[in-house]
Amino acid sequence: MPTVLRAPDDFHVHLRQAPMLGPVVRETARWFDRALVMPNTTPPVTTPELLRAYRREIEAELDPGSRFRPLLTFKLVSALRPDDLEPLRDAGAVGGKLYPQGVTTNSADGVTDVEALYPLFQAMQELGLVLEIHAEEPGAFSLDRERAFLPRIERIVARFPRLRVVIEHVSTAAALSLLASLPETVAATVTVHHLLLTLDDVVGGELAPHNFCKPIAKRPADRDAIRAAVLGGDERVFFGSDSAPHRRGAKESACGCAGVYTAPVAIPLLAELFEREGVPLTEAEARGGPSLERFVARYGAEFYGLPLNERTITLVASESTVPDEYDDVVPFRAGARLRYALGDHGGS
Amino acid sequence: MPTVLRAPDDFHVHLRQAPMLGPVVRETARWFDRALVMPNTTPPVTTPELLRAYRREIEAELDPGSRFRPLLTFKLVSALRPDDLEPLRDAGAVGGKLYPQGVTTNSADGVTDVEALYPLFQAMQELGLVLEIHAEEPGAFSLDRERAFLPRIERIVARFPRLRVVIEHVSTAAALSLLASLPETVAATVTVHHLLLTLDDVVGGELAPHNFCKPIAKRPADRDAIRAAVLGGDERVFFGSDSAPHRRGAKESACGCAGVYTAPVAIPLLAELFEREGVPLTEAEARGGPSLERFVARYGAEFYGLPLNERTITLVASESTVPDEYDDVVPFRAGARLRYALGDHGGS
Repeated sequence: MPTVLRAPDDFHVHLRQAPMLGPVVRETARWFDRALVMPNTTPPVTTPELLRAYRREIEAELDPGSRFRPLLTFKLVSALRPDDLEPLRDAGAVGGKLYPQGVTTNSADGVTDVEALYPLFQAMQELGLVLEIHAEEPGAFSLDRERAFLPRIERIVARFPRLRVVIEHVSTAAALSLLASLPETVAATVTVHHLLLTLDDVVGGELAPHNFCKPIAKRPADRDAIRAAVLGGDERVFFGSDSAPHRRGAKESACGCAGVYTAPVAIPLLAELFEREGVPLTEAEARGGPSLERFVARYGAEFYGLPLNERTITLVASESTVPDEYDDVVPFRAGARLRYALGDHGGS
Repeated sequence: MPTVLRAPDDFHVHLRQAPMLGPVVRETARWFDRALVMPNTTPPVTTPELLRAYRREIEAELDPGSRFRPLLTFKLVSALRPDDLEPLRDAGAVGGKLYPQGVTTNSADGVTDVEALYPLFQAMQELGLVLEIHAEEPGAFSLDRERAFLPRIERIVARFPRLRVVIEHVSTAAALSLLASLPETVAATVTVHHLLLTLDDVVGGELAPHNFCKPIAKRPADRDAIRAAVLGGDERVFFGSDSAPHRRGAKESACGCAGVYTAPVAIPLLAELFEREGVPLTEAEARGGPSLERFVARYGAEFYGLPLNERTITLVASESTVPDEYDDVVPFRAGARLRYALGDHGGS
């Protein structure tokens, strides 16, 4: 009996640039009808022209008839002025991404003084742009970076009560505790890998570069808190994969890049997790309670004020093995068995 | 003005097997007059015959006239019987190494039931053999493994009050706190990398497989506690490098091996650390206080009941760059600048 789900959204994805762009876009579009596209390209997306150009590049890679729609973001850089934001919104940006300096891939140009961005946050609040935050404090010890950043979020939320804020790829129980104390204007995305991994999956046995990401996976108690929020149906916690492909040579290296390529496996892995934990996959089955479908296809859209996707996808119980690589990118869980696959026609 | 030190001992080293054995032995012998050689070869050193054979292999690789002397150990495996230990001691073993199962390289055959080894510990106590412990609890979260193992050490020490026990490559403040509370029969070794690294040097920026070791480097507070013990001249804390070469391909891999090759750089790096922290390098300069010379050439020998080395080595202030590799092994701090080098003739 196939499982029919509303087509999901991925509220945090790295689609990269040519030549990686094409296969990554098509893989994401197989599974998702929309994706919030991160702007940390080279150069970063900081102007309406760059934003439009990046969208054109993405759309040019889609198969004919694809219903996938990229949701573009811009990168908050110190050169931006409040007046620059309306043209970005008019070009289609739904949000602006804050990268503290040096915390992840292509963030050497990141922000060193968050408060200096307050005039931009003010403009974003007025324009209805969402502030997406990579919430790690530069300079703090790796396992403490997310927690150390949280007071900044509290101050932003207190100062801009109508600004919608997303704490991206939460990795700690502390971030979820804070979220619970904050108003409805604040939400968080969760990746599939932070639902499944702890630091032990990176350094606990042999070193596992293909499980290495920022923020780094943390303690079992952190992973369990993330699972509890997601499986408990917290509607301010929704799916953003942070799927972030790097070529094998850049991962299996003396200086390995951070990022996990989850686009091809995220939905099957989430389905297995929900099923294993006894949480329904579909809204129909859940009768108003938590479900995979809400996590991937409702809560995020509602927070962003977007209509729900109309298309559906079909998951079929069909065993398969995760490929060792996709165009020289080793995917998350390479070689592992999956119990679910996308139905033949993808969806309808 | 060159610095003359009593030739150091390395109380924890992996010399490996042919073809890696030769260059590693000669590099270790350049710096150290003795080294306690770990027995986790393939097959492991568990019999007098294997121990003698391994010593012959090591000695065959030494340059003519070398004064280097390997101190052999055997691996504690469940097949050993108390009666097996006297022949091992007579073959020259100075200690037996306990590897809990699965905690590091070649430990799949490690111990699952530490208490089942108590008859061996009893025999070791009677024979004057030292118990060297890789103190990590299998199954615990990586950052907690050392701390989780400590109660086992307390029980062993309480049960065998005359058994000399070394907690190898301590990586936590907790282990040093425990050590302070235990009698003089217990000591600890410290590596150069645990004096210099934290987890951030492995996963805090890009992934750094050449800083990946077991036990994994921990928090800054742990590193600081290790530094305080060493720089403060705790005489039960002495140098054991845990130098553990792996070929580049085994480190920069989808499944990277744990181990850091420090033999070529350990003494210069230690000299820089002591100097930077204002602790004398030589005993003469220290006038009874802490010094590098005591850490590397006195405390360990005294704990093991060995005479101090008579030879000296000479450190000269001479800038050099750590090579990118030694026979396909990337050393610790590859590419970094060193301020000290071994004097022309090594020593006298």
